[in-house]
Amino acid sequence: MSSTYGTLFKISTFGESHGPAIGVVIDGCPAGVDFNTDFIQAELDRRKPGQSRITTQRREADEFEVLSGVFEGKTQGTPIALVIRNTDQRSKDYGHIAEQFRPSHADYTYTAKYGSRDYRGGGRSSARETAARVAAGAVAKLLLAHQGIQIQAYVSQVGKLKLGKPYQELDLSQTETNAVRCPDAEMAGQMFQYIDETRKKGDSIGGVVDCVITGVPAGWGEPVFDKLHAELGKAMLGINAVKGFEYGSGFAGVELYGSDHNDAFYTDETGKVRTRTNLSGGIQGGISNGEPIYFRTAFKPVATIMQDQESVDVHGQPAVVSGKGRHDPCVVPRAVPIVEAMAALVLADMYLRNLAARL
Amino acid sequence: MSSTYGTLFKISTFGESHGPAIGVVIDGCPAGVDFNTDFIQAELDRRKPGQSRITTQRREADEFEVLSGVFEGKTQGTPIALVIRNTDQRSKDYGHIAEQFRPSHADYTYTAKYGSRDYRGGGRSSARETAARVAAGAVAKLLLAHQGIQIQAYVSQVGKLKLGKPYQELDLSQTETNAVRCPDAEMAGQMFQYIDETRKKGDSIGGVVDCVITGVPAGWGEPVFDKLHAELGKAMLGINAVKGFEYGSGFAGVELYGSDHNDAFYTDETGKVRTRTNLSGGIQGGISNGEPIYFRTAFKPVATIMQDQESVDVHGQPAVVSGKGRHDPCVVPRAVPIVEAMAALVLADMYLRNLAARL
Amino acid sequence: MSSTYGTLFKISTFGESHGPAIGVVIDGCPAGVDFNTDFIQAELDRRKPGQSRITTQRREADEFEVLSGVFEGKTQGTPIALVIRNTDQRSKDYGHIAEQFRPSHADYTYTAKYGSRDYRGGGRSSARETAARVAAGAVAKLLLAHQGIQIQAYVSQVGKLKLGKPYQELDLSQTETNAVRCPDAEMAGQMFQYIDETRKKGDSIGGVVDCVITGVPAGWGEPVFDKLHAELGKAMLGINAVKGFEYGSGFAGVELYGSDHNDAFYTDETGKVRTRTNLSGGIQGGISNGEPIYFRTAFKPVATIMQDQESVDVHGQPAVVSGKGRHDPCVVPRAVPIVEAMAALVLADMYLRNLAARL
Amino acid sequence: MSSTYGTLFKISTFGESHGPAIGVVIDGCPAGVDFNTDFIQAELDRRKPGQSRITTQRREADEFEVLSGVFEGKTQGTPIALVIRNTDQRSKDYGHIAEQFRPSHADYTYTAKYGSRDYRGGGRSSARETAARVAAGAVAKLLLAHQGIQIQAYVSQVGKLKLGKPYQELDLSQTETNAVRCPDAEMAGQMFQYIDETRKKGDSIGGVVDCVITGVPAGWGEPVFDKLHAELGKAMLGINAVKGFEYGSGFAGVELYGSDHNDAFYTDETGKVRTRTNLSGGIQGGISNGEPIYFRTAFKPVATIMQDQESVDVHGQPAVVSGKGRHDPCVVPRAVPIVEAMAALVLADMYLRNLAARL
Repeated sequence: MSSTYGTLFKISTFGESHGPAIGVVIDGCPAGVDFNTDFIQAELDRRKPGQSRITTQRREADEFEVLSGVFEGKTQGTPIALVIRNTDQRSKDYGHIAEQFRPSHADYTYTAKYGSRDYRGGGRSSARETAARVAAGAVAKLLLAHQGIQIQAYVSQVGKLKLGKPYQELDLSQTETNAVRCPDAEMAGQMFQYIDETRKKGDSIGGVVDCVITGVPAGWGEPVFDKLHAELGKAMLGINAVKGFEYGSGFAGVELYGSDHNDAFYTDETGKVRTRTNLSGGIQGGISNGEPIYFRTAFKPVATIMQDQESVDVHGQPAVVSGKGRHDPCVVPRAVPIVEAMAALVLADMYLRNLAARL
Repeated sequence: MSSTYGTLFKISTFGESHGPAIGVVIDGCPAGVDFNTDFIQAELDRRKPGQSRITTQRREADEFEVLSGVFEGKTQGTPIALVIRNTDQRSKDYGHIAEQFRPSHADYTYTAKYGSRDYRGGGRSSARETAARVAAGAVAKLLLAHQGIQIQAYVSQVGKLKLGKPYQELDLSQTETNAVRCPDAEMAGQMFQYIDETRKKGDSIGGVVDCVITGVPAGWGEPVFDKLHAELGKAMLGINAVKGFEYGSGFAGVELYGSDHNDAFYTDETGKVRTRTNLSGGIQGGISNGEPIYFRTAFKPVATIMQDQESVDVHGQPAVVSGKGRHDPCVVPRAVPIVEAMAALVLADMYLRNLAARL
Repeated sequence: MSSTYGTLFKISTFGESHGPAIGVVIDGCPAGVDFNTDFIQAELDRRKPGQSRITTQRREADEFEVLSGVFEGKTQGTPIALVIRNTDQRSKDYGHIAEQFRPSHADYTYTAKYGSRDYRGGGRSSARETAARVAAGAVAKLLLAHQGIQIQAYVSQVGKLKLGKPYQELDLSQTETNAVRCPDAEMAGQMFQYIDETRKKGDSIGGVVDCVITGVPAGWGEPVFDKLHAELGKAMLGINAVKGFEYGSGFAGVELYGSDHNDAFYTDETGKVRTRTNLSGGIQGGISNGEPIYFRTAFKPVATIMQDQESVDVHGQPAVVSGKGRHDPCVVPRAVPIVEAMAALVLADMYLRNLAARL
Repeated sequence: MSSTYGTLFKISTFGESHGPAIGVVIDGCPAGVDFNTDFIQAELDRRKPGQSRITTQRREADEFEVLSGVFEGKTQGTPIALVIRNTDQRSKDYGHIAEQFRPSHADYTYTAKYGSRDYRGGGRSSARETAARVAAGAVAKLLLAHQGIQIQAYVSQVGKLKLGKPYQELDLSQTETNAVRCPDAEMAGQMFQYIDETRKKGDSIGGVVDCVITGVPAGWGEPVFDKLHAELGKAMLGINAVKGFEYGSGFAGVELYGSDHNDAFYTDETGKVRTRTNLSGGIQGGISNGEPIYFRTAFKPVATIMQDQESVDVHGQPAVVSGKGRHDPCVVPRAVPIVEAMAALVLADMYLRNLAARL
């Protein structure tokens, strides 16, 4: 088990979906950061369930308590512990699957690894754990705000519905205006309807979250193994249901010639070195180059569906897993703040590590 | 700079393309592994330049020396240091770019981060560094061979030429029979011709490397942050020129309904729990489930091309970067052993970490 | 700030003396450990204040809550979060020192490092934080109990009063029979009286805690940097007020000839390799050799005294620090369970790391 | 095995006493450090054998080669690999002990842990490995020199011969004027004679090395677990033959009252906060306070002696270990540069980590 992430801005999350609480300890946040509790709560509210009829109806207040590390409104350089109580656990909803392995969930693999599992919901593998990441990510965002950095994620695809526009052509300020979190209102409407229809069928569908980061100066990232995009990729792939990650030109860039793919340098009117195109995605050789950083993260359809499915039980006998309880028909609207949070955690760590790059 | 990877099977690589040597220290390889130097050399030979006319003509013998950690043919549990001398450095080839930033290379970002750069070739950012990874990965493979694990990568796409078959329909024993390292002979021929034409134009082209890993038992991987696929993703994204990573159904899985995507469990004739399909890619909840693990890695067209390109110099003045020297028109044939090596390093670490999972 | 310890059995503590709570997250405890809450509470009770008139009268119930990682009485392999609420904070006791630097406390250095400090008591530097270590150490002890390991610390010196007997001549089962935690009843009586007299003078005095660990098999420890005794030393030196650490023959061994110091090997009646003497302290080359491990830890007189002292305030102006509030006149009786806890954390980590030593 | 030390200034050493070479990779040295190869060689020369008749007559040139990380006389921020070839291996000297466990050496414990050992000399457990640390420590010293930091160690005790003066009363510039490395010429003479007599008897004797560090600003150190003195302690205890560590008042401080032990603060004429005494050893709460840092390290008599000793062989049968080969009768003169090197490595890491302490 590794629930610890980061070299200098280090977080350690804990908690199961149906235990008393989830939470996180942040060890390494510099002293002097303005600790805005309203902002942190707002970030948690973006992730919490029950925001619209296309998200799970499980109700969690997701209110957090600060146990340490903050004094007179500022971080102290000491560990910051944040705890979120689980209030709507309804373990009874899950009793029927205590002895079954749900298809494409982590029931079987946790049992194989640890010899047993907490069968009340997803236990540790539940996406509920990501609330702790969002809380920690919010603190990272507060740190990064001192550096002028902005992180904006949005939904670019739901099932076969693709936004089909690069980030440069979008007004990202519109992202939070709709339940899908797609900055294009028309596409957002189509996506909403599609997700809702999927929900009614008791099924689920996948999607893609894009993310754009502005304000990162040239120089962040730690090659050769902790390249900025490698850490971003690891962080995204660590989110539940993620199946793929690409940055800059990504998989599509494979089909280009180098002469089309290379980003020509020029010096702008302020004397800053820029690139005319940004197929590099703001990162070259694993280090930020000052251009906007952008990447895409693919989410599979969530495994919980309201249909009967073939499976086996913990004794290896055939079993039918029935769909009960509450679920998200499509995870990407609620994944938007999680993607941002993980990106913030990566960048906070890279910011601090870069302080030691040279005399 | 972080040139260290791994928690228990830990490697630390070093070396610039035009310095005296590159190499790696492996700290944490268990004692008792059969240290097969012929195998390690063979792996290095798979990566080395000059294998055919579609790879760079730079000549490096890539012979390695063992400085420590091996005694009487066995690893000792002590650090294993492997060194590969640079024999064909030709610094003069690079003198003309000492003051220029080559587009989509790491020249600018290294300078921004460190205040200077080793302008003899790519310096630390050169793909030459990956030879050290291949050597370390070969040792990891020797460790994993004791566990019955096999790692096989192959080229599945070059530019727009796609193999278009899942791994189950391929005969991976054919991969090494051609210079492209595509297991389908006909497609390999087309790819070879395409790369060669690209080379003649002085241009470069991207590609995709797929990888299949068999023999991994259920239980490897360390959620929530060090999920098996998250570590594989980080490792792949740490390879030069990689722009994307996906495992199992990947980006395509986004378009499926959960009812089509979920892998039904069953018990096979030997009593082993299996899945009927493998869209999970052998990993559920970040932990291996015993099915074959597979993933895909996207490589951009390499930045070095034999054409003039717009850029700036270290003083911010406009400059024209001319194409000289030797380069790979398409990196994926030589990337195959690198992908395998990085996968082996991830798995070796996960194997050792899993020993502590339960009493 | 680094409040994280351990490579595999990793803990992350948090909390200030006068904040809402202190606690710890344990990431990496194997699944399957019997989680005995009564034992953990008993360990906390050994450390808590107010046990006799020679310890601080500050009252803390030190009751802990388990937030995660335990299900049906067993650890799950997932992070274990333990929280202890601060119930007797009395911030008013400390208001008078908000602007002063207390001599030989961490007030000045925390301010120098972080730019500010939580002046309510010791904040993060308070020994109250060690309650979280004791809780985590108790979990480590439960893990080690499965391996038959016993850790016993005791007070061997208070001021100039020295026990003067090696561990082999002591009955360690008597340690907990007196308030001083010295296994020799007569010496314990003298020490108690001495501490009490020191208390009445408003002064404080130092002491030494010895520790003996039995049941560790040969092979634990990770040279060359993470030698078993080096990790024990770091762990002990990380406890508040510790000024020195020695193991085996320690500083006294300096005066011996090699011919007197070397521990001769022999094979005992069961065929086990043993040593006739144990000046090595159970560790050779940084690895346990199967003999009892023993070490000694020196604690300075605690800095808080009930006397006026010369100092400066946060503006650099002269100030007189007055002794108020509650304090421990001698820290070693309550340090005994802390020493044991830290030793348990080191050994738990070394146990898990050693699983990867060889095929 | 953990041959890696450091969080940001990270080193990874390798090599056995009788293999082809030893060396170190430094990952994380900032770019821009003046890389003075003469200085590094001089540091190695201080440690190398054969300096006088009271050190081992084994001859090693200890010349190092730089394989990477340096360009045009400056560090590049990339890994620095340093290699020292073993030139005087004489494996034959050790053939007679291939099957024996030498008392108080690491022969038995390495075999117990790894299942076999490199019996040519100490293998990995040989003090020869410390040459790599001295090389790395020299680079750390070069980094610290940019911060005005000076590290000076010296011999303060050999057997029962004690210098008996605090560092404030010594002229440390005299340390290198004699073979013992004691700054007091008269005591140095007595010590030399005593070591020489011990050598003639075929025996060995222990000693103490003190170390004083000046120029460290207030604020370095990472509580609660990575306190500055805890890291120094771990680093010292990781040196071969070390049995104890104390800083500031150390074990002697145990006997003092708090009213005598506390260091009163005052503001000096330059406005700097100082302490009137320095029993804290320059560190309070695990963080440097700007006063000189000092500590003491106890070395046992080295285990190799020129006498017959009782032991067992690898089959558990009784055996007599005969003294042959070459050895150091007292390790402390050559340990002086090793102590300094390890201190430099700790401080370099703490310096870099402190950069992230606050906004």
